[in-house]
Amino acid sequence: MTEFSVIGRSVPRVDALEKVTGKAKYSVDLKLPGMLYAKVLRSPYPHARIVRIDISGAEKLAKVRGVVTGKDAPEEGVGWIRDRRILARDKVRFVGEAVAAVAADSIEAAEEALELIKVEYEELPAVFDAEEAMKLHAPVVLHPDLLKYTRTPLPYPLYRFDPERPNVYVHRPIRKGDTEKGFEESDLIFENRFSTPMAQHSCLELHNAIAVPEPEGGLTVYDSTHVMHAHKADLCRLFRLPPSKVRVISLYIGGCFGGKAGMIVPAIASLLALKTRRPVKLVLSRDEVFLDGTSRESMTIYIKDGVKKDGTLLAREIRMILSAGAYSGTTTLVAKNATFGAVGTYRVPNFKLDSYAVATNTPPTGAFRGFGSTEVLWAIESQMDMIAEELGIDPLEIRRRNILKEGEEDVCGMKTHSIGARECLEKVAEWIEWDKEPLKEEGSWKRGKGIAVGNKYTMVATRSVVNVKVHQDAAIEVRHSAHEVGQGGNTILAQIAAEEFGTSVDKIRMVFTDTAITPFDAGTISSRSTFHTGNALRLACQDVKRRIFETASERLKVPSEDLSLREGVVYVKGADKTMKVADLFSPAGFLLKGGELVGSGTYAGPLESEDADTGQGKRPVTSYAHGANAVEVMVNVETGEVRVVRNGTSFDMGQPINPKLCEGQMEGGLAMGIGGALYEEMVLSNGEVVNSSFIDYKCPSSLDVPTCGDVKSMIAAAPHQEGPYGAKGFSEGGLVAVAPAIANAISRATGVRIRDLPITREKVLKMLRSITGTGKEVD
Amino acid sequence: MTEFSVIGRSVPRVDALEKVTGKAKYSVDLKLPGMLYAKVLRSPYPHARIVRIDISGAEKLAKVRGVVTGKDAPEEGVGWIRDRRILARDKVRFVGEAVAAVAADSIEAAEEALELIKVEYEELPAVFDAEEAMKLHAPVVLHPDLLKYTRTPLPYPLYRFDPERPNVYVHRPIRKGDTEKGFEESDLIFENRFSTPMAQHSCLELHNAIAVPEPEGGLTVYDSTHVMHAHKADLCRLFRLPPSKVRVISLYIGGCFGGKAGMIVPAIASLLALKTRRPVKLVLSRDEVFLDGTSRESMTIYIKDGVKKDGTLLAREIRMILSAGAYSGTTTLVAKNATFGAVGTYRVPNFKLDSYAVATNTPPTGAFRGFGSTEVLWAIESQMDMIAEELGIDPLEIRRRNILKEGEEDVCGMKTHSIGARECLEKVAEWIEWDKEPLKEEGSWKRGKGIAVGNKYTMVATRSVVNVKVHQDAAIEVRHSAHEVGQGGNTILAQIAAEEFGTSVDKIRMVFTDTAITPFDAGTISSRSTFHTGNALRLACQDVKRRIFETASERLKVPSEDLSLREGVVYVKGADKTMKVADLFSPAGFLLKGGELVGSGTYAGPLESEDADTGQGKRPVTSYAHGANAVEVMVNVETGEVRVVRNGTSFDMGQPINPKLCEGQMEGGLAMGIGGALYEEMVLSNGEVVNSSFIDYKCPSSLDVPTCGDVKSMIAAAPHQEGPYGAKGFSEGGLVAVAPAIANAISRATGVRIRDLPITREKVLKMLRSITGTGKEVD
Repeated sequence: MTEFSVIGRSVPRVDALEKVTGKAKYSVDLKLPGMLYAKVLRSPYPHARIVRIDISGAEKLAKVRGVVTGKDAPEEGVGWIRDRRILARDKVRFVGEAVAAVAADSIEAAEEALELIKVEYEELPAVFDAEEAMKLHAPVVLHPDLLKYTRTPLPYPLYRFDPERPNVYVHRPIRKGDTEKGFEESDLIFENRFSTPMAQHSCLELHNAIAVPEPEGGLTVYDSTHVMHAHKADLCRLFRLPPSKVRVISLYIGGCFGGKAGMIVPAIASLLALKTRRPVKLVLSRDEVFLDGTSRESMTIYIKDGVKKDGTLLAREIRMILSAGAYSGTTTLVAKNATFGAVGTYRVPNFKLDSYAVATNTPPTGAFRGFGSTEVLWAIESQMDMIAEELGIDPLEIRRRNILKEGEEDVCGMKTHSIGARECLEKVAEWIEWDKEPLKEEGSWKRGKGIAVGNKYTMVATRSVVNVKVHQDAAIEVRHSAHEVGQGGNTILAQIAAEEFGTSVDKIRMVFTDTAITPFDAGTISSRSTFHTGNALRLACQDVKRRIFETASERLKVPSEDLSLREGVVYVKGADKTMKVADLFSPAGFLLKGGELVGSGTYAGPLESEDADTGQGKRPVTSYAHGANAVEVMVNVETGEVRVVRNGTSFDMGQPINPKLCEGQMEGGLAMGIGGALYEEMVLSNGEVVNSSFIDYKCPSSLDVPTCGDVKSMIAAAPHQEGPYGAKGFSEGGLVAVAPAIANAISRATGVRIRDLPITREKVLKMLRSITGTGKEVD
Repeated sequence: MTEFSVIGRSVPRVDALEKVTGKAKYSVDLKLPGMLYAKVLRSPYPHARIVRIDISGAEKLAKVRGVVTGKDAPEEGVGWIRDRRILARDKVRFVGEAVAAVAADSIEAAEEALELIKVEYEELPAVFDAEEAMKLHAPVVLHPDLLKYTRTPLPYPLYRFDPERPNVYVHRPIRKGDTEKGFEESDLIFENRFSTPMAQHSCLELHNAIAVPEPEGGLTVYDSTHVMHAHKADLCRLFRLPPSKVRVISLYIGGCFGGKAGMIVPAIASLLALKTRRPVKLVLSRDEVFLDGTSRESMTIYIKDGVKKDGTLLAREIRMILSAGAYSGTTTLVAKNATFGAVGTYRVPNFKLDSYAVATNTPPTGAFRGFGSTEVLWAIESQMDMIAEELGIDPLEIRRRNILKEGEEDVCGMKTHSIGARECLEKVAEWIEWDKEPLKEEGSWKRGKGIAVGNKYTMVATRSVVNVKVHQDAAIEVRHSAHEVGQGGNTILAQIAAEEFGTSVDKIRMVFTDTAITPFDAGTISSRSTFHTGNALRLACQDVKRRIFETASERLKVPSEDLSLREGVVYVKGADKTMKVADLFSPAGFLLKGGELVGSGTYAGPLESEDADTGQGKRPVTSYAHGANAVEVMVNVETGEVRVVRNGTSFDMGQPINPKLCEGQMEGGLAMGIGGALYEEMVLSNGEVVNSSFIDYKCPSSLDVPTCGDVKSMIAAAPHQEGPYGAKGFSEGGLVAVAPAIANAISRATGVRIRDLPITREKVLKMLRSITGTGKEVD
């Protein structure tokens, strides 16, 4: 393996100083001259026809500068199938849907105006349950025009509407072998139903945007998003503006986890800004984020496995039903890509999967760290333990037996590459001392260990463009739009640039993301930045180095191939000659030969798309990262309380660029995973979120996460041949195996098997009591 | 001549909408979070030693965040010979020199702090008169270390110090032929002394800068300047910061006319920002602008001409003495380049010129629209009329006889090219009906017509780099740093880009000047932007078109040479095939093949430098623009009042890019010229400016400028072979011939010949009375 100078080192984050000194800028803190404040009027009904809206009272208020309703909103819809208008026009489809919006001199004036808007509704029957909604010829149809909606063109199959199931946005099938035959040949069949609830990303920074109308008709939007170029394209489309007149600036962002890709906030702010010709700021309240800030969908997973007595999987059938909510957002894609969670880890000769995204009269959903893999892995990894228990096989052993090997074809027909699942499994098992029994009983507390593996793919067909500029002082300026969202992406990219130029990270200048300055990037999604933006950056570095070497070659009169670059100096192989990069610039501060010293690189990764009916394809994903968790839990059999007391995580991110940041991702994933496993759940009643605050929706605090010495993050090597230096993205993966590892540990401690997340005290206690009823030991 | 579609058309200014809607941003209006306000303590003495400074009282004030004196200031000096430290350390050399500066929470607190700073001075003898100061072994020496100062390296001769004349910053000689012999052969000799006073640029926006310290040690400066890349380089040098960590942003600027090139304001703001780690805003008061905002130097011109009876010039000797002030700033260069005003227009077989920039204990001076040409032309064009009068030749005719012809060598040995002086002269003469006598006597008002020609060069060895980016909607984004200062530069460049791309100006996006984004440019100086930045822009357009044609050539399978571009569509010569530029981009908004669609161009113009001792050189300037003014004045022989009632101006800007903007430059030049001719003068008493406000320093108002029908701006053709489409810069030229034309008109109306500007009522009246004394008719 190559020796690296910067890659693989835990250099401090490049944004550390800015953040700890409070200088880092967030759009939510921004105040522009002449700025107005917006508020949104929302539907109180889950499904209703809008009969009329009277805004005359609101418009008369002195401090109100503009009121907009569905009539003012663009004709075009948002979401991948354009099923939602930014303000409802004829119908509302969920409690909280935006119906009107006001821009006023103050938030108070805007709120006052909302109360004066009169909306007359005619209630319609609603459907809240996805399985209900996806029934044949369901009576309540959310989008009667679904088949006519515009489908964003894609280089892979996604949209499969079904006229007989009019609420199904997407049906994604995978077919391999013959599951019927597989089940026949199996010694045992396991069949279970699992579920995961709707959940919040719980970003510290509330969703916000400030839209600024430009004098010549353009639009600048300070947008708290991680997909600014996509937002720019959508703003152009919605408001019929040419790309050169729309600018999206994303400052620092206080968390996203996939949740800030939605268009509603920037689009409503823009609509008001274009109407009032003033800058307009829209910040959702926490309550509004729960209602309309994009949540994680709830999912029901039916899984049927056929196994031999030795634990070998022979056949697997999975049916995933995603309650996408009233509008599809990106959940069309979640329904497809979530299936890869069921694909990436195990060898299954006969496999059948059907995934459905279904419209219901509940808040819209979309991307959430893990993008569906977490949910399906909850089912699979729970079931793997249930099989092991039944067969009397060690949970570690059953996984060892079924994990895919390098070079094998997975159930989608893609050749497995860079799989470190087994190594991760062994690492965490060793750390948690899997072979040793946990301590037994401490009062009413029982201890148990649990283990699980998981994977997270990086999607295909996303593009990154990176420009690199070399300054006179040989500092390297990196212009990219893979937004730093707190994950440390800018540090990773700075390390790559430093490595390519043989210099240190302090010589790298990261330019902040702004569509007017930084080139196209698909954004911070799908754990893709290290792989895609990293590769584009390497190409950009090579491009500008080529330019440097060309000029140096002329000056030094040696062939380009003999040149290398280190610390701003060009060296000649086997000769004493050198040339400073600074000498490419004349004393007055510009290049002697033409323009600036700039290079460019583009990377989109491989794509050999899958078949729409079978899901079979040579390259339906870019890469998989694999990981494992081993946890030790304490369960209080009197209260049902569960504490995660120890955790080992391992992920195979190939070559880690910055080990400390990788560990941070694993630790963050653990905390988020514990939240999802034990506490977090959006509770709905007739489609209305009833716990829309952090008082009622419980996130884990630092007291709920095992402390320092009791947590271990371990890096497993599985270099990817196409990743930069072998690196691949994994950061979403952090949480995929946490919940099943905890559930498996609880089961091993108490015999209680929970199938529906979260594992609340009530559920544990209830099941403990029912087990006691069957005569099993409880305390 | 080529047919143009956009060039030569008076399209509206591209910044018109922003400016009339009040959206245009100026740094003077900017307020940043946590921003401090700075004030500067200034010397009350013209020359003194600083014995000690006590800042303890000021530092104790609650709202004061930082106090700096010369001890805190960088070691390095500013100005071309680095003769000034941004805060005086050991000595002060003029009344108003910055001695200390304070940053506080409010302007009031900063002002209060200034009063608490105690400075002990030891007065030194001072010298205020340049001729006194440049005497052999002058007793008062401002810069005893002058010979040791750092001289900015230049590709042409500039610095000529003289140990025997220790206050001379620069001596610039020109020698051609033998003037002694020329005078001997002459029929008449004319010898006169002329002078021009110190003057203000009178920008509406006061000098200001906001310096922002960046967390990782860098510096961002919002700088009201027209030479931002030079300022960036100076900030790097002063504060020892690498180029990649310093960013200079110039927003709109409320006038400059050369006056905002100085470093004092941005450097003091930066010093305080780096000390306090807070953004610091420094705005000079109008009074401070008079004292230390860079003024125009005062100049004394001795001119001796030898002529034949037919008016042919045989020999000319000129001695120019510039009172540069206490520090040289750019006046070293003024002393050299002002000589070109004496070079560009007339054929003189024997020529001798000596120009001196001299240190005096008066406010520092520097660039001012015209850069010295205005001053020397005041002498030359006055003298031409005096010769004509004496010889009984028409002033028009004497100029016709002596004006250089295309291809002739001028007195510096450069081949005359693109000279429209004669055409300009004829045009203005025709318009003012030169042949017709003016109306005689209306009460105490006498009328007279006057004419003058003039030239303004564009300097050599300045570089422009322009980047051009093509957007998906085929909009063209132009990134350049030739700052729009109100002159309309961005409109000119937008027209060039539109012409090159066969599109309209509304498709061009001008990016605002920011050293982090827009590439190197020498800045908005020396009437160079149209020529230099325009040429660089054309090259950049050609570069990106080459990229477009390469790709289109592959796709359309035709040779690149057969392709042309119009309105975002590539056409094939003699074929029906076309391709949209938008098709170079994939549907998702990025180029199918690599990076962004960007081109780059660099232009620095020709340079064949002159000999240091004789000024002889093939190409000591880039180009000359020539023009003429014909005015009609009314002189009140009872009050001395002068009114300019009609004016015709003509300039030979080659191909005008935007005729309306060219006319605007001529009209603006006229107003500024009238101010300089009749009113404007900084009055000093013992080195102290005594009229440092617009109450006492009189600028012309609209009432002092002839109105609509009485003003005519005419364009003369004299395309320059190297200019873009034949265009050349001329905008400084607007005022060069105004004062002598007015003086000549006054002389023809009344017999009064004023040699010292401005032509105040007092001077006119005094001379009228003295003429009456000699028996000449007055009323």
